[in-house]
Amino acid sequence: MKASEKLIQKNNEGKFICVGLDTDLAKIPKHLHSSENPVLEFNKKIIEATYRHAAAYKINFAFYEKLGAQGFDILHATRKLIPDDILTIADAKRGDIGNTSKYYADAVFDIFGFDSITVHPYMGEDSVKPFLLYEDKLIFILALTSNPGAEDFEKLKLSDGSYLFQKIINKANNWNEKNNCGIVFGATKSSELKENISSFGNLFVLLPGVGAQGGSLEDVVAIFKENNSRKFLINVSRGIIYKDNTENFDSMAQEEIVLMNQKVLKLLS
Amino acid sequence: MKASEKLIQKNNEGKFICVGLDTDLAKIPKHLHSSENPVLEFNKKIIEATYRHAAAYKINFAFYEKLGAQGFDILHATRKLIPDDILTIADAKRGDIGNTSKYYADAVFDIFGFDSITVHPYMGEDSVKPFLLYEDKLIFILALTSNPGAEDFEKLKLSDGSYLFQKIINKANNWNEKNNCGIVFGATKSSELKENISSFGNLFVLLPGVGAQGGSLEDVVAIFKENNSRKFLINVSRGIIYKDNTENFDSMAQEEIVLMNQKVLKLLS
Repeated sequence: MKASEKLIQKNNEGKFICVGLDTDLAKIPKHLHSSENPVLEFNKKIIEATYRHAAAYKINFAFYEKLGAQGFDILHATRKLIPDDILTIADAKRGDIGNTSKYYADAVFDIFGFDSITVHPYMGEDSVKPFLLYEDKLIFILALTSNPGAEDFEKLKLSDGSYLFQKIINKANNWNEKNNCGIVFGATKSSELKENISSFGNLFVLLPGVGAQGGSLEDVVAIFKENNSRKFLINVSRGIIYKDNTENFDSMAQEEIVLMNQKVLKLLS
Repeated sequence: MKASEKLIQKNNEGKFICVGLDTDLAKIPKHLHSSENPVLEFNKKIIEATYRHAAAYKINFAFYEKLGAQGFDILHATRKLIPDDILTIADAKRGDIGNTSKYYADAVFDIFGFDSITVHPYMGEDSVKPFLLYEDKLIFILALTSNPGAEDFEKLKLSDGSYLFQKIINKANNWNEKNNCGIVFGATKSSELKENISSFGNLFVLLPGVGAQGGSLEDVVAIFKENNSRKFLINVSRGIIYKDNTENFDSMAQEEIVLMNQKVLKLLS
């Protein structure tokens, strides 16, 4: 199934939450430390507890790369634990000259088997195109991110009066010929979402920044509702996977994602 | 030894060429295909033939990531083959929110043991700072890249009349408090180098784009000479490692880097 169709299907089922598997050995419940592969065991329990409610899973590559080569084995094994009908996002933030981006696309899509990837736009079209050539995948271009550094370059004003991140959203619309392009748009300030949502066109929107980073779920969903759009995916990492650090961490993660879905659905209705 | 000192020492020895280990199974000499680990064997031969002449080695992560988890074993093993007095650059183009960038820095510096990394500036200061906290390392921020897509965003004109990549060079100067910051500046168009070199300050400059991508070695070196600067490093990947694809590939790679060093020295004298 095409990546975007997986997402639309989940959205139609009332699922809008992407579970971020930012799994950190130092933060997982202590009782798992004695298992053979604690990070993988944690991910397995989280996936088993949440897959009936998740719209997507996002795997943050840094958390696995810091474990060295074996971290990529854990990443790959985690990817395989996710049921096929659920979108898997490689949060790898890749981007390089054309022939190098092609190899990153090979790695993420063909070797590790992800449906989707996050991509740095800075190096321009030929750095993004090798990913977009995969028609069935979904490419999330970084537009406005949820961190303080977004002020430094993303929000620079261009000579035509627009902001850099707005130029990137325009380009992403141009690059969306095959309906396989999306954007990352930080949800920490809902006023920015409100001001820019009309420029999103048919792009899917991955929204980090809700919860731990300060964004309001209520405000974000209300803005999409006002604009009659359901093409959004709210990423929650720490707020779900570390909701609890006892032996009940998995059922508490489940409870949290169920509550969030209910909240979103109520706001949309 | 501090990464920047390694580079200064090599420059003082008349070595300005960074060998790019963009090693691709499809492009290495056929006779190596029967060895147990052809990519590692190729890298070993190239390093043995060139280490007395190289100012640095740059390992392009994409070429290893596309081999899956075992690719990172090969990458790590390759890194260990490089003598300690030679700068090793992780061409990984990482960049994420602060706590994630920290993990990328852990991976590249502490786990894989590199001296240096290339970093995407798009997400701003807090995405770059975790790398810069490593005082002894050298962080190359992408400023102007050598690919066609550089036109799309890097060369956008800002409201103050400067280009985006110039703003990034200014920021990199501010971030260079510990003399551990550099920039990537594409050498495909020497006029751009000429126009901007006065803004480089104390930043080390990694120059891709010479050779296969069309940049002129002569023009680039002449510009640094005019500006009394030797803080540059010319990356050559395909032009050295694939100079020949017979059983003599390693001695031909050696011949090529020796010739290039001689050319640079002659131009500087």
